[in-house]
Amino acid sequence: MTNIFEQDLDKNAANFEALTPLSFIKRAAILYPHFEAVVHGDLSRTWEETYFRCQSMASALTKRGIEKGDTVAVMLPNIPEMFESHFSIPMSGAVLNAINTRLDAKTVAFILQHAEAKILFTDREFSIVVKEALEIVANESPEQQILVVDVLDPYFKETEGGTIGEIEYERLLDEGSNFHTENAHTWSLPEDEWDAISLNYTSGTTGNPKGVVYHHRGAYLNAANNALSWDMGLHPRYLWTLPMFHCNGWCFPWTIAATVGTTICLRHVREDAIYHSIKENNVTHFCGAPVVLNLMVNAEDSLKAGVKNSIQVMTAGAAPPASVIEGMEALGFKITHVYGLTETYGPMVVSAWRTEWDDLDNKQKAVLKARQGISTVLAGDTIVADPETLEPVPWDGLTQGEILMRGNIVMKGYLKNTQTTHDAFKGGWFHSGDLAVRHPDGYIQIKDRSKDIIISGGENISSIEIEDVLFSHPKILEAAVVAKSDSKWGEHPCAFVTLKPGESLSTEDLKAYCYENLARFKVPKTIVFDTLIKTSTGKVQKFLLREKAEAL
Amino acid sequence: MTNIFEQDLDKNAANFEALTPLSFIKRAAILYPHFEAVVHGDLSRTWEETYFRCQSMASALTKRGIEKGDTVAVMLPNIPEMFESHFSIPMSGAVLNAINTRLDAKTVAFILQHAEAKILFTDREFSIVVKEALEIVANESPEQQILVVDVLDPYFKETEGGTIGEIEYERLLDEGSNFHTENAHTWSLPEDEWDAISLNYTSGTTGNPKGVVYHHRGAYLNAANNALSWDMGLHPRYLWTLPMFHCNGWCFPWTIAATVGTTICLRHVREDAIYHSIKENNVTHFCGAPVVLNLMVNAEDSLKAGVKNSIQVMTAGAAPPASVIEGMEALGFKITHVYGLTETYGPMVVSAWRTEWDDLDNKQKAVLKARQGISTVLAGDTIVADPETLEPVPWDGLTQGEILMRGNIVMKGYLKNTQTTHDAFKGGWFHSGDLAVRHPDGYIQIKDRSKDIIISGGENISSIEIEDVLFSHPKILEAAVVAKSDSKWGEHPCAFVTLKPGESLSTEDLKAYCYENLARFKVPKTIVFDTLIKTSTGKVQKFLLREKAEAL
Repeated sequence: MTNIFEQDLDKNAANFEALTPLSFIKRAAILYPHFEAVVHGDLSRTWEETYFRCQSMASALTKRGIEKGDTVAVMLPNIPEMFESHFSIPMSGAVLNAINTRLDAKTVAFILQHAEAKILFTDREFSIVVKEALEIVANESPEQQILVVDVLDPYFKETEGGTIGEIEYERLLDEGSNFHTENAHTWSLPEDEWDAISLNYTSGTTGNPKGVVYHHRGAYLNAANNALSWDMGLHPRYLWTLPMFHCNGWCFPWTIAATVGTTICLRHVREDAIYHSIKENNVTHFCGAPVVLNLMVNAEDSLKAGVKNSIQVMTAGAAPPASVIEGMEALGFKITHVYGLTETYGPMVVSAWRTEWDDLDNKQKAVLKARQGISTVLAGDTIVADPETLEPVPWDGLTQGEILMRGNIVMKGYLKNTQTTHDAFKGGWFHSGDLAVRHPDGYIQIKDRSKDIIISGGENISSIEIEDVLFSHPKILEAAVVAKSDSKWGEHPCAFVTLKPGESLSTEDLKAYCYENLARFKVPKTIVFDTLIKTSTGKVQKFLLREKAEAL
Repeated sequence: MTNIFEQDLDKNAANFEALTPLSFIKRAAILYPHFEAVVHGDLSRTWEETYFRCQSMASALTKRGIEKGDTVAVMLPNIPEMFESHFSIPMSGAVLNAINTRLDAKTVAFILQHAEAKILFTDREFSIVVKEALEIVANESPEQQILVVDVLDPYFKETEGGTIGEIEYERLLDEGSNFHTENAHTWSLPEDEWDAISLNYTSGTTGNPKGVVYHHRGAYLNAANNALSWDMGLHPRYLWTLPMFHCNGWCFPWTIAATVGTTICLRHVREDAIYHSIKENNVTHFCGAPVVLNLMVNAEDSLKAGVKNSIQVMTAGAAPPASVIEGMEALGFKITHVYGLTETYGPMVVSAWRTEWDDLDNKQKAVLKARQGISTVLAGDTIVADPETLEPVPWDGLTQGEILMRGNIVMKGYLKNTQTTHDAFKGGWFHSGDLAVRHPDGYIQIKDRSKDIIISGGENISSIEIEDVLFSHPKILEAAVVAKSDSKWGEHPCAFVTLKPGESLSTEDLKAYCYENLARFKVPKTIVFDTLIKTSTGKVQKFLLREKAEAL
């Protein structure tokens, strides 16, 4: 039987609409039409212009036959067309599949086929890879027709890399309704906020990449959540050092629309380009993996000169070494450390600052900030628990468990991957695969990926703990530690180390340093001085390092 | 046919949970257990304590037979038990009905019956009215059993006003599970975010009050929206100058939980108590109707001394005269002017500041701030349109239309009032009854309530425009203008004016002032020096003033 609050109090057009980040760009364009939305070198566009362009593109996609639930893929750097795609493609009802631009042709071909892409926007920088990928698709899936659209970014200066598409982006856009003059409305909010908005493939250490599906509801909530947990206010000037293909730039394209900010594009993520843009464009916020911050800390002093204090920096990805956080803060940047996965729309947990820590010294502060932290306000629950029994670990900073999440910014699931989706959601929690402890203050700290743990003589050794020590060495630029088979101990830690330019360091000296700072059984028995193998997002590829370690 | 993004990607416990502000208190208590949640005089409770108390009360309500969709009414001032009720009652699955504490017994009786209240929490201050109301209910609805619960606030100092209930609040709370020791969980998030969370009766100028139903989804979104549009950050110290019975304190009890702030109770909203609490409790934020701000502007200088700069004040309710805004800002307060109705969970529109106005003088700034503004970010659409054709008015600052709203913070509807609900949502928009213009910058400015407009010689006259002029007179404390029948012109403006203490002013001098500042036909032909008749929330009761004007 229904109660009185369920009688004649139904949803209708006045009191219910689907949660979608598309409402943010509509609001920004209507209420702040002349406010700067996009900067790319000399180019500047307002929110109204950007919105009109997105509407035109949505209309053009529709005219080209794109329907709800079709996939439109993009292979683009952080340029205005990439930003626009986060709105225009879902406005047409399609799903945005932003492909990691550093992938090889074979993987790109797999993604295009698995996602059943109907259209691909591509940049000349990636012509060779994309052309090869399209050839693979043509061979393997001759029935799949992909309309290839070239984006001609004026800041692409290389001579190689011609156009490979049927049509240029601007010409396709011209095919759409001209909203400037017609004031037409050919798009509407999604009917159901559970509809997919985007598709992001995770690199996956073995096998084929998995396609993580986001919905409008989650994208809306995490966009608002970013603004809340970073306390962004109105009109941030946000620099794109984080690739937009990475978890849709942690949902920040939508956050920038919600906060009516300015999106500052950056084609090449290099330290000189970053510092120049920060100074030239009065940047207030940017995000980046620890590897980007490391670049910035180790940049020339001349680049660092003249940077304003208190620019807000959000970092996540690999657990950032405390020394990198400390280094950035010493330069005047304010670091917010967050944690999440592709499966959680990017950041879900924040290492929120507590006022009672204000009087600690910088090193202690950095160590606290380097922990992953606590669930953000709109995110839902994050616990550390036994993945089988789901029993939470005690908050003792010692007992390890797996990080489990639930809530509205956990993915819809993996595309066409029922079993893996089912396994990932076992027991009503998303299983992150990250091993962590929970401190007495409730803050979560990652100890390792479950597959990266080193088991030596029956003891679990955290590769991250060793890496933290290596990073704290003044001569070391980067380090990664993996397990290497050991006839006596089962496994032992093997360290890969990159020194800062011009530095030298002996294996003996480094081992001595480790003995000073680590329990004996944790000191790497093998040390390799080499550059690290990384993904395009700066994640060290430990499975490749493990292969290398085994081959030594 | 379903597309690939609709296959095996269903909702489950890991990736979907109902949006509800109850998740905010759970998070605050788990992650910030020892942070101060509630202050009331000498009393201070943490988030953990408050959460335990709310859980115990929810459990006690359940043991007393309360089920999903039952109504629990409260008649309480801004004390800790009122704050707790915003969590404990919905945690039990019941609907919180906070009754305006200034209502007469007959109206309270109507509400208790119409809401089908099963339990009533009441404060000794209201014993006489509540007792009488309960007698009416007993006579008119003998089958309705109401468990009356006395809240014994130590700061209620009057001698009259005894207890009238069956049990005290603290004893009822004791009946619940003791979560401190048992760590039990007897409550869960609502199954459906569309479930009702609260019921707020609007005063209504004629006929019986209407019961506005809020749902968990809207309460969650507006709580987050408040934090975003006011840029509140973490740990605000929020003073309760706004009654919590008014649109659930504009959803701020839930906002304070979301921002892990501190709620500072205030039994009596008097200027001395407000100023003392601001200074004593290091208040950072408060809300209040213009009448409260007016009290503060006109307070003794000794009270104003020692108040910190930049305390954030949110105001709404009646359109605040620019002079009140200017006066508060001159005292160092930062005013944010918002607009909404009971039907929109409180504030839905904000007069957001624009940096291009920074160089204007204070008077010009106040005039801009006195406009209602633009839709807040999570609120949905607000337009000014012809209520019949739904055609938006041009953005010319001149053409009047009705303010229409849609989105997720528009009420579920009016309880047991199908036709009125249907009419209010005509054409898929909520009809506010407020007449407004839209300025070229998109900002909405109210010209009048549709029923308050004065039509004189065929010209529409805004009572608010005249009131603004009257308020700007240095000797006037308050003013209200209504229509009075006029044999020649149909109607003419009649002004009710209250002077500041010790001031005197002649009708002639005031008319002369009006001629200087208003078009001739807008000058009030009738002027009455008298105190204004107001509702408990400080809203002037124009229908009573109209009756008085007609009787002159």
